[in-house]
Amino acid sequence: MTAQQPLIAVIGGTGKLGAALARRWLNAGLDVVIGSRDPTRAAHTAARPARTGQSLRVVSNQEAAAAGDIVVITVPYAAQADTLGDIRIAVAGKLVVDTTVPLVPPKVMRVQLPPEGAAAVRAQRLLGESVTVVSAFHNVPAQRLAADERINCDVLVFGDSREARTRALRLVKAAGLRGLHGGPLVNSAAAEALTSVLIFINKTYAVDGAGVLLTGQFTELDGE
Amino acid sequence: MTAQQPLIAVIGGTGKLGAALARRWLNAGLDVVIGSRDPTRAAHTAARPARTGQSLRVVSNQEAAAAGDIVVITVPYAAQADTLGDIRIAVAGKLVVDTTVPLVPPKVMRVQLPPEGAAAVRAQRLLGESVTVVSAFHNVPAQRLAADERINCDVLVFGDSREARTRALRLVKAAGLRGLHGGPLVNSAAAEALTSVLIFINKTYAVDGAGVLLTGQFTELDGE
Repeated sequence: MTAQQPLIAVIGGTGKLGAALARRWLNAGLDVVIGSRDPTRAAHTAARPARTGQSLRVVSNQEAAAAGDIVVITVPYAAQADTLGDIRIAVAGKLVVDTTVPLVPPKVMRVQLPPEGAAAVRAQRLLGESVTVVSAFHNVPAQRLAADERINCDVLVFGDSREARTRALRLVKAAGLRGLHGGPLVNSAAAEALTSVLIFINKTYAVDGAGVLLTGQFTELDGE
Repeated sequence: MTAQQPLIAVIGGTGKLGAALARRWLNAGLDVVIGSRDPTRAAHTAARPARTGQSLRVVSNQEAAAAGDIVVITVPYAAQADTLGDIRIAVAGKLVVDTTVPLVPPKVMRVQLPPEGAAAVRAQRLLGESVTVVSAFHNVPAQRLAADERINCDVLVFGDSREARTRALRLVKAAGLRGLHGGPLVNSAAAEALTSVLIFINKTYAVDGAGVLLTGQFTELDGE
């Protein structure tokens, strides 16, 4: 760890996806703070780091957002707007990595994109232009992320700033996954919609966590 | 070939995707008729079957649609509405496999789904309820389909009727690809949007035709 290392705040970090990501980042030696609507409960349920010595704090979502250099949103779609409203001031000027998938129960196997076109675009509008929103981790099965197994699933990263996508791609790599630039934030619709398709496939083919791999001979990009 | 074998009409069959699919189906021993806005030109440019003995006719789009038992639409997005208007009467009661991807030049690397949510849903609305629309083949690089190589890309098939999806999945298999049920027609948005992401990836990573594979342990479905 260096002094320059960014602090990652995982908002909703007691949920399946948030806890799994926090745990993987902690194990990779990154600094993580977990935000929760109920920090007392969170302190008990939050994923524990396998190694010692890393910082693990569980605080309120607002405190976590205020402390973090990079703020990762891992809350259900139904809680996205309220959560972003709560942390809006705290994340001004920061990089926000939104993982929201617009699943609308009970029809979670049916693609139901929001009027904005994508949950990530909705996040950007709710947070305002001072915040740089990228989106990622839509298609990774949380139960596989929680286990320490190798995951056969790529992570597409969307955002209007290439530099911001590159920062998020470092987090993807630290979580043990391959990340790929997926283009502007509006393209997040593709990965968000794909999640409903993956849930449909899990049910139809009795798969425990279908994933998606991009195929082709990829060049390595400078500095990534 | 049996008398029961359906005749496949490929509308826009002189385009890259249509010609490649027609060629693969002909080589698999299926009966194919090619439709074109300009049949005289089409007769020269249409892909030729590698084996002899199969039926290959190039006619107008309307004639092809009238003759076909299954009608496959392979026209650019800008031509989708006009083409479907031309064949609307001819396809009444039939299975239509729409391959339309809503690419809006010049920003083809940017997801721009239509107001209906998906080009496939638009096709269903334009053709009316007497027609059974499924969608497929959105993500397969046409240049790889045109070559006789193995393609590292799955085909997601969308449609509100499982029986109709299953019929389309047989065509996917005959074209040498793995097809998977992707859920209701609205879910087509996922694969349609993904095409813009794949084009972005091709450019960003200098890939010649990135594709997408679904990962997981899939059960085999009865009769497929």
